[in-house]
Amino acid sequence: MPPRQSGRMNIRKAWEADRPAILEIILPVIREGATYALDTSMSEADALSYWMAGDKETFVAEDRGIVLGTYYIRPNQAGGGRHVCNCGYITRAGAGGRGVARRMCEHSLAYAASRGYRAMQFNLVVGTNERAIHLWQSLGFQTIGRLPGAFQHPTFGYVDALVMYRLL
Amino acid sequence: MPPRQSGRMNIRKAWEADRPAILEIILPVIREGATYALDTSMSEADALSYWMAGDKETFVAEDRGIVLGTYYIRPNQAGGGRHVCNCGYITRAGAGGRGVARRMCEHSLAYAASRGYRAMQFNLVVGTNERAIHLWQSLGFQTIGRLPGAFQHPTFGYVDALVMYRLL
Repeated sequence: MPPRQSGRMNIRKAWEADRPAILEIILPVIREGATYALDTSMSEADALSYWMAGDKETFVAEDRGIVLGTYYIRPNQAGGGRHVCNCGYITRAGAGGRGVARRMCEHSLAYAASRGYRAMQFNLVVGTNERAIHLWQSLGFQTIGRLPGAFQHPTFGYVDALVMYRLL
Repeated sequence: MPPRQSGRMNIRKAWEADRPAILEIILPVIREGATYALDTSMSEADALSYWMAGDKETFVAEDRGIVLGTYYIRPNQAGGGRHVCNCGYITRAGAGGRGVARRMCEHSLAYAASRGYRAMQFNLVVGTNERAIHLWQSLGFQTIGRLPGAFQHPTFGYVDALVMYRLL
């Protein structure tokens, strides 16, 4: 059975008015500290500044006016590395299983190609985040390598992290 | 024959007064764009701000008052990734072959361990930079993976880049 999807899901650039919804979505994930390498005690203002930073383009996925997820895209490096992009995706708590993350990643891959990026790189995919790893694999990402003990998980301690990459 | 080394080489934290020397060392490498993923046209002020940014500790290697090289160390990620450090090293043009880069890397490995870091990661070692790759390998770094076409080299076009990593 395919995952439930709403045909009405719409992905668009985030506006200023989306900031409260984006914060509601990203803050629990940042506070948990299990998937993103961010200071779990960062302020709400810093969390929003991070997710909507000047080097990023930020999108939201919405369904009938409810923001179900958000992602950013940015150049992963400057200069000779700026043709490779990097993204982060977060689905609203309780909105899992509806294909939101997949839709956002598909959107980001198409958007990245349209912007002239030649590849997408995830620098630190936490090894215990199996659901994400399977999703990225199903979307054509390859595991470039495994960084031993590169992430301190709040429950599991030091775990490996993957570098994942997809040519566009 | 071992590389020429000066027994007097001293590595210490950079001071404000080192800024002109640091700029002399890093600017040609940034302008060349062959080894660092940085905007080759960045201003001198931005170059110094990058190399001596607030999240970095910056060192210089000097011999009889002449700064021969500089390196920085910083956490490679925040939060659950902050126990892995990242460094950049640049030797002054004309000062190659004296073991400056090796001495700086050895210093950084010892300093990193003393600061509680558990690993050191290089995120983007340009595949054509064979001298650096051999040096890092000789200092215990492993190639975690190869990023296809991740760096646009000014002469060779799109070349692979390596992710290298060493546990401390």
